[in-house]
Amino acid sequence: MSQLPENEGILSVATLQVLADGSARERREEVAVEAPFAIQLEGETLAITMRTPGHDAELTAGFLLAEGHDPRGIAQARVVKRGTLSSASCGVCGRDDIEDLITRLGPVAAETRFERLVLANVMQRLPEHQPSFARTGGLHAAGLVTEQGQFAIAREDVGRHNAVDKVLGRAALDGLLPLSNHFLVVSGRTSFEIVQKAVAAGVPAIVAISAPSSLAVELAERFRVLLIGFARGGGFTAYAGRFRLQGTG
Amino acid sequence: MSQLPENEGILSVATLQVLADGSARERREEVAVEAPFAIQLEGETLAITMRTPGHDAELTAGFLLAEGHDPRGIAQARVVKRGTLSSASCGVCGRDDIEDLITRLGPVAAETRFERLVLANVMQRLPEHQPSFARTGGLHAAGLVTEQGQFAIAREDVGRHNAVDKVLGRAALDGLLPLSNHFLVVSGRTSFEIVQKAVAAGVPAIVAISAPSSLAVELAERFRVLLIGFARGGGFTAYAGRFRLQGTG
Repeated sequence: MSQLPENEGILSVATLQVLADGSARERREEVAVEAPFAIQLEGETLAITMRTPGHDAELTAGFLLAEGHDPRGIAQARVVKRGTLSSASCGVCGRDDIEDLITRLGPVAAETRFERLVLANVMQRLPEHQPSFARTGGLHAAGLVTEQGQFAIAREDVGRHNAVDKVLGRAALDGLLPLSNHFLVVSGRTSFEIVQKAVAAGVPAIVAISAPSSLAVELAERFRVLLIGFARGGGFTAYAGRFRLQGTG
Repeated sequence: MSQLPENEGILSVATLQVLADGSARERREEVAVEAPFAIQLEGETLAITMRTPGHDAELTAGFLLAEGHDPRGIAQARVVKRGTLSSASCGVCGRDDIEDLITRLGPVAAETRFERLVLANVMQRLPEHQPSFARTGGLHAAGLVTEQGQFAIAREDVGRHNAVDKVLGRAALDGLLPLSNHFLVVSGRTSFEIVQKAVAAGVPAIVAISAPSSLAVELAERFRVLLIGFARGGGFTAYAGRFRLQGTG
């Protein structure tokens, strides 16, 4: 057994780091690589997962084990096929082809810009909207916030993507799409799927307390979404769509 | 729009809270409910998600929106079917029936017990095995640790379940199953799937830095897995399988 994980699956991206005093500086930051991977057994694709590249044979073996396959037969699963953005299916989002999905999505058309102070201060108020997290410590939260900084909807769920679906689903049921003058707040990290959901609802900006994945950054840049991570202590890092940012020095 | 999330989806469970000095007390703790839910459109099941009950029509609407359905048609999706453990499929784990899956799994046979101090101290050493998290802040980690407290394998991934698959897959490829004398460490929360994977590999204990879901607790209890959450500052909370715990006062 190896003693330490390998240092794989990291990508460096250009960011704008915005400090609490409003000053901003260009900086390169490292993000974790997120990429689709097809888990196959004897030529049949059993699942597609969004994973960090590296140790793919192990990933396949572990997945098959949990699915009830005899571990003695797992060595046969070492031959696996790498998925790519242009060819792989996306089991997570339930579509046959990520590229097809991306093609169907249109970039966020609204030209809305957002004030730095509104974005920087929103995380302080997220806990008010996490009553179940306060009691259990086991829930993610998502919120839809107006460009003035008012929480319009907030939801909690054991699944981060579910919390986002509930928030954007509420807005859709209320006939409020596209959400051109709102931004999405998430309690954790930002993945491909979170950005995909925001784009589908026409949300021009996402603010997260934690890091984005490589694919989240790529999708946000492509679809004109302001993607903010590490929104803490009055500062944050903008990973994509920074033309929407106002009030930085 | 509603201003605050509803306080749904919380369950109270019996736990043993173990303090840093080794003293222990019975305590009830609240956990977030995790339950399968079938997302259906016009009678067809599109996906099954493990979610926190509540706002299910919103969840369905949001999911369909991200899948490219016209939001104006989403109101039709309000009629949805609740999944139950005994009847629902599990899209997450790729199986047709959770109950079928559970039936295939055997309880962890090993009678291994674990020392409180080993369990309590392991989290302090997890960061050594998270080099990519240190650089990106965007990765989960899982580790396989011997009953003496030595890290045997550690892996990082954007997906928590993937990190666990990689760790247990490595052990399976090395012919080390069942892992009767090891425990699994995870950097985040514990879901149904994490426990399922541990059980499939014969791992008798799981230590997590954060909270378990209701279904994780239920599955761990049923399959004789010691399930520990909130392993921080030398103390922790045991949610299931506490007969495996040694060294508490």
